[in-house]
Amino acid sequence: MKLATLKSGSRDGQLVVVSRDLSRAVAVPQIAATLQAALDDWSSVAPKLADVAAALERGEAKDSFAFDPKRVMAPLPRAYHWVDGSAYVNHVELVRKARGAQMPESFWTDPLVYQGGSDDFLGARDDAPVPSEEYGIDLEGEIAVITDDVPMGTKRDSAFDHIKLVMLVNDWSLRHLIPGELAKGFGFYQSKPATAFSPVAVTPDELGAAWRDAKVHRPLVVHVNDQPFGQPNAGVDMTFDFARLIEHVTLTRNAEAGTVLGSGTISNYDRSLGSACIAERRTLEQIEQGKAATPFLKFGDTVRIEMFDEQGRSIFGAIDQKVVRLG
Amino acid sequence: MKLATLKSGSRDGQLVVVSRDLSRAVAVPQIAATLQAALDDWSSVAPKLADVAAALERGEAKDSFAFDPKRVMAPLPRAYHWVDGSAYVNHVELVRKARGAQMPESFWTDPLVYQGGSDDFLGARDDAPVPSEEYGIDLEGEIAVITDDVPMGTKRDSAFDHIKLVMLVNDWSLRHLIPGELAKGFGFYQSKPATAFSPVAVTPDELGAAWRDAKVHRPLVVHVNDQPFGQPNAGVDMTFDFARLIEHVTLTRNAEAGTVLGSGTISNYDRSLGSACIAERRTLEQIEQGKAATPFLKFGDTVRIEMFDEQGRSIFGAIDQKVVRLG
Repeated sequence: MKLATLKSGSRDGQLVVVSRDLSRAVAVPQIAATLQAALDDWSSVAPKLADVAAALERGEAKDSFAFDPKRVMAPLPRAYHWVDGSAYVNHVELVRKARGAQMPESFWTDPLVYQGGSDDFLGARDDAPVPSEEYGIDLEGEIAVITDDVPMGTKRDSAFDHIKLVMLVNDWSLRHLIPGELAKGFGFYQSKPATAFSPVAVTPDELGAAWRDAKVHRPLVVHVNDQPFGQPNAGVDMTFDFARLIEHVTLTRNAEAGTVLGSGTISNYDRSLGSACIAERRTLEQIEQGKAATPFLKFGDTVRIEMFDEQGRSIFGAIDQKVVRLG
Repeated sequence: MKLATLKSGSRDGQLVVVSRDLSRAVAVPQIAATLQAALDDWSSVAPKLADVAAALERGEAKDSFAFDPKRVMAPLPRAYHWVDGSAYVNHVELVRKARGAQMPESFWTDPLVYQGGSDDFLGARDDAPVPSEEYGIDLEGEIAVITDDVPMGTKRDSAFDHIKLVMLVNDWSLRHLIPGELAKGFGFYQSKPATAFSPVAVTPDELGAAWRDAKVHRPLVVHVNDQPFGQPNAGVDMTFDFARLIEHVTLTRNAEAGTVLGSGTISNYDRSLGSACIAERRTLEQIEQGKAATPFLKFGDTVRIEMFDEQGRSIFGAIDQKVVRLG
């Protein structure tokens, strides 16, 4: 099934079930008012939502209405836990190589993650406000999963069943703030403004054969200002699958229901597929042409991130945002 | 007023108003079921809670009952935003000096913060489960504030009024996981297990003259295994006050209602006052005696963190936890 959260004037919005083709939706207040409420009690709520989804597919859901992606918030408009990995290690290797640094061998076996801000997620069509173009505004196209309660000490083999929903992500980044912040040693904070998510979150079964080994085996299609930018395959060169990432993030902590776990920027060794962030393209330009040519984003620029099934149908709806000046 | 959250079988517990002397409590479901719900609508909810608090002080609150700190969850059992500073820069300077590293001058003017895990906060009397003693288990005694909605771009002068509640914190740390994690460059994750908070959160006015300049001017009294460990004054040597920290954390983001903002380990230049974490004491031992003598914590060890007013009355109740083996 596919789930979305519509703007309703409340902080957590209104949970709706969306049809597979993204054309229709139905509110489910009698089952769960919000997606977090559904996740808090997923094992009993999910079957009821699935019944509604099935009725919607049959054209039998009462009070269904046209689904308008312009009305969405993030599926979880705010979350208690947002942890983003850097699972496409070839991307890290590339970026380090470009600045003449050696990547430690351990990066191939020990996942890299950061704790992100989760109180203010952006909807798929919300503008992305930034105080200054000087900050080096960049997109990062990613996949994220949402889990139920995952106890501390969960191993990879036990982690698969904790993955309940899948989404697309635009992990907005402010590149020129990153070096100073990382040099301080405590990780990203100011350099990571609010993150945006796809209009709908889907259960893994909606992905069919594209969901296997806790990876999404489809290209992520990225456009910048309506021009094709990249379409790396999210299932290729993902060094750590989501089950392995869950093992990593629960070594010393519980991950509570509604934990959002990201893959990091999708990146393939096959560079002909393009990139899912400007920083990577600039790195490739630097290596190949001696000079980064593609500029970071300016106010008014747009970013579109989408994924299609084998029949060319949008799975999650499109993240389609404009960068705007704060205020 | 003073607020607490009692265990009720639900994830967010039950909000109660607690008397100034921490002896009595009263549930307020007619006003707000949970502290997050209160914070979501603070300007209209807070006056109603204050009325209940006043009635409780007069002995006129209906259905009040004895307040039992053993029954508390964290005031916010889960939060959407936990950002912890390192505002006592003398502590950072000391630790760096001990390992022969120079602290950049900018650390005196540019705050250091990290994004913490907020989906699984511990109550003041909850055990602290850790998988292994080999991780170097340590406490960090801190102050935290809770804000209402703070818009992106808020300057220090406008930040004071956004501070709605104050709490004590034990920011549990796994010291032996920190060097490896920080070397990877993305900040703390596995090295920071679930954080614990004091039994009650209080409005700044409850601190009287001890609340000024967005700092708490009282000693934080720390015991380890019932032995005095340190009592540094939280109002002394705090390089960045909470208003300045708010300015820092809202440069590129909104901080939504219920944001928990920590001070970092409290530390005074007057080393006779002791420390609020074992790592600092070990550093001082290293410098003074050539060798760190105080061990990190073992399973069964206890940590007590409390703060008293000028009359010796506990302001927040005590964080009093035992370290236990996971499982």
